[in-house]
Amino acid sequence: MSYFDAASAAPLHPVARQALMASLDDGWADPARLYREGRKARLLLDAAREAAAEAVGCRADELVFTSSGTRAVHTGVAGALAGRRRAGRHLIVSAVEHSSVLHSAEVFEAEGGSVSQVPVNRAGAVDPSSFAAALRPDTALACLQSANHEVGTVQPVAEVAEACRAAGVPLLVDAAQSLGWWPAGGDWSLLTASAHKWGGPSGVGLLAVRKGVRFAAQGPVDERESGRAPGFENLPAIVAAVASLRAVRAEADQEAARLRELTEWIRTRVPELVPDVEVVGDAERRLPGIVTFSCLYVDGEALLHELDRAGFSVSSGSSCTSSTLTPSHVLKAMGVLSEGNVRVSLPPGTARADVERFLQVLPGAVAGVREKLGAPTAPATATGPGELLVDSLGKRCPIPVIELAKVIGQVPVGGTVRVLSDDEAARLDIPAWCEMRGQRYLGEEPTEKGTAYLVRRLS
Amino acid sequence: MSYFDAASAAPLHPVARQALMASLDDGWADPARLYREGRKARLLLDAAREAAAEAVGCRADELVFTSSGTRAVHTGVAGALAGRRRAGRHLIVSAVEHSSVLHSAEVFEAEGGSVSQVPVNRAGAVDPSSFAAALRPDTALACLQSANHEVGTVQPVAEVAEACRAAGVPLLVDAAQSLGWWPAGGDWSLLTASAHKWGGPSGVGLLAVRKGVRFAAQGPVDERESGRAPGFENLPAIVAAVASLRAVRAEADQEAARLRELTEWIRTRVPELVPDVEVVGDAERRLPGIVTFSCLYVDGEALLHELDRAGFSVSSGSSCTSSTLTPSHVLKAMGVLSEGNVRVSLPPGTARADVERFLQVLPGAVAGVREKLGAPTAPATATGPGELLVDSLGKRCPIPVIELAKVIGQVPVGGTVRVLSDDEAARLDIPAWCEMRGQRYLGEEPTEKGTAYLVRRLS
Repeated sequence: MSYFDAASAAPLHPVARQALMASLDDGWADPARLYREGRKARLLLDAAREAAAEAVGCRADELVFTSSGTRAVHTGVAGALAGRRRAGRHLIVSAVEHSSVLHSAEVFEAEGGSVSQVPVNRAGAVDPSSFAAALRPDTALACLQSANHEVGTVQPVAEVAEACRAAGVPLLVDAAQSLGWWPAGGDWSLLTASAHKWGGPSGVGLLAVRKGVRFAAQGPVDERESGRAPGFENLPAIVAAVASLRAVRAEADQEAARLRELTEWIRTRVPELVPDVEVVGDAERRLPGIVTFSCLYVDGEALLHELDRAGFSVSSGSSCTSSTLTPSHVLKAMGVLSEGNVRVSLPPGTARADVERFLQVLPGAVAGVREKLGAPTAPATATGPGELLVDSLGKRCPIPVIELAKVIGQVPVGGTVRVLSDDEAARLDIPAWCEMRGQRYLGEEPTEKGTAYLVRRLS
Repeated sequence: MSYFDAASAAPLHPVARQALMASLDDGWADPARLYREGRKARLLLDAAREAAAEAVGCRADELVFTSSGTRAVHTGVAGALAGRRRAGRHLIVSAVEHSSVLHSAEVFEAEGGSVSQVPVNRAGAVDPSSFAAALRPDTALACLQSANHEVGTVQPVAEVAEACRAAGVPLLVDAAQSLGWWPAGGDWSLLTASAHKWGGPSGVGLLAVRKGVRFAAQGPVDERESGRAPGFENLPAIVAAVASLRAVRAEADQEAARLRELTEWIRTRVPELVPDVEVVGDAERRLPGIVTFSCLYVDGEALLHELDRAGFSVSSGSSCTSSTLTPSHVLKAMGVLSEGNVRVSLPPGTARADVERFLQVLPGAVAGVREKLGAPTAPATATGPGELLVDSLGKRCPIPVIELAKVIGQVPVGGTVRVLSDDEAARLDIPAWCEMRGQRYLGEEPTEKGTAYLVRRLS
């Protein structure tokens, strides 16, 4: 098996395992207690905090351990917004933040706050000047990830931090995907991260809040972790998390260069090996281990199953694998194809041979899925001279796009195809297909059931 | 070293350690993913949930894993109150609940809810009829611990649950101290617990919500754990928690009987060995491993240090060890002495020889602390015939009580002593001393600085 989903969760680093074992003996007691076992636990906790702060680039008393990266984000966003209530009730987030940030923003909106989403370009990056333009006198907080979790694009955090600093607005940087590689650059005010993304155990997140940033922890009072992370400290896991952070950082430069080469290889070879593929995300400013591509006419979930059977564990931001049946908000914000989406995220140590085998297996897997999906007869009906109607109502992605592709040749150049679909993914994938295929997307119209998408044949 | 503070955190059970090790290999991946590693993780999570539900006495789909017992309580209380918003905005808690419950109640009150605290008797137990009397038509939720964490008193959960059921009010039972011993009795609606109290790892709590109980999870949306516990599941710790719960339950009856004998021995011997001691908590309806007593004229923190030096790790609900300098709310609600308070909570497996050694060491430790504290000259001044004034302003507990005890013999029977004190603990400890010594406590009066406590000599 080759596990290529490190961006979801990295396998436990050997150093994390050792540290966990060791601290199970010395770190189970309550660090708030004054007796010997408590003092031992306190020493471990203090040392872990010092080491984590060094890796993050902050003071030890600015950093607390939470029970997950998600909790760190929830706590950080809510605390900063409450601490800055007097400044105003406006929050800025990028459109491609992790769901924990976006869901925090939803809560804020439900409570009467206003939220601006800064759009991203086709590579998934925000434009620092667009971000700066969203800053208002009543902006309480801005949030920007260090790098995107689905496509690996690195965000211009330093520039955005500078703009925020100039406006007197704190910036929360979600560094979940990058902290194992490098400290977040730029003059951030709050930072969050998650240990199981860098090979630490699950159950540990980090929240750093710079001194001077107004912060009011929400929820019931609890004296632990400066009142910012209620509940008994998960000490063995904290020790393991920090030990592994130091370990991966020590190897980071070398490993980053090696993985970058492997992902570059995938970026180059996949479009050569597989027809109708779009590699997404920034080609240069990106995380070392992540490469993401979308395959036309492919059901993402089916492709994941094929790859799993062939021994590869990858992820997908495609609508077809999500329980909510809506396409990834990241791919949507980028305006790129979501169907047949595959995210390959290589864990440190991935062997070149495994990537080679992946590249051997992928074309057949995609072809197999396409073959299975290619069967349906396109039920196109002529609705006028040079006009065809494709009724894809009730059909899940990627069928609407497959049917569109099948019939586009049946109208003359300049003619139009109207695709009826009630799958939310069509809204993203039909324009993306037009972009890839050099056809013109004319727009959508609501119909009795679902939506009609209009496409003009250009070539 | 003898660790006698299992009620804070129990050392990791060997079975928990084994399970943790084993599941680090199979349980690090995201259980929401469809590939092999994710499916393995999902299987482990499902099996853990089934086993935990069996031990709790609920359906698997009623139980979620949280990141701590404190989180389980915060989530449970907030979710049940929000789910029952239409029923009303009244919450009932006992006066001796864990701080996580009381702090949740504070949040609710700050948001405009009303809270009733049901008092306890001198043994620390609520009276079921008093609890029932607190139920109102607008009561949204009632909370009662299964057993008290400071004094070990078992609460009449079944009777209270029946009253709540009759009134149509859900009852949340905080079973943190008892779940390792037995399933919570009674027809509860919500239940919370914490793994590190039964020898599981830290980082795992349980929240069970019976089907049919209205529940609205608060905070940002997250799809994990039925939307009730955001963040990546801490799977190895969950597996270890559940494995150790099953292991301790298998030994529970036998071990409970053994520990009960040891704590009974302490309950009997301590008052024989140490003068001026009050053993607190119910002598019969109590947890097997906990015994708590308070020593007159003793600074709790100093006593803890003495015992730590002698190799015993115990805890204290005394004002003198708390960072907030207020006496334990539990001892306060019981109306018992808080000074020189010691909680002995034996972990399973405690050897009789260790308890014997504790009983040998304790009298000397108490005597040593008393000797150090006994020195100050009582600055009593006659303020009238048969009236003395003791000025203890600026002196920390237990000095005010020590000075009272020194001068009480200087007034005739029927005479009064007035103690000036600005230590909050005096409010609890002076009446408790009167009760123990057969003197009459007449009440308190505010003074310019602090409070005057009036005591009449009866014997």
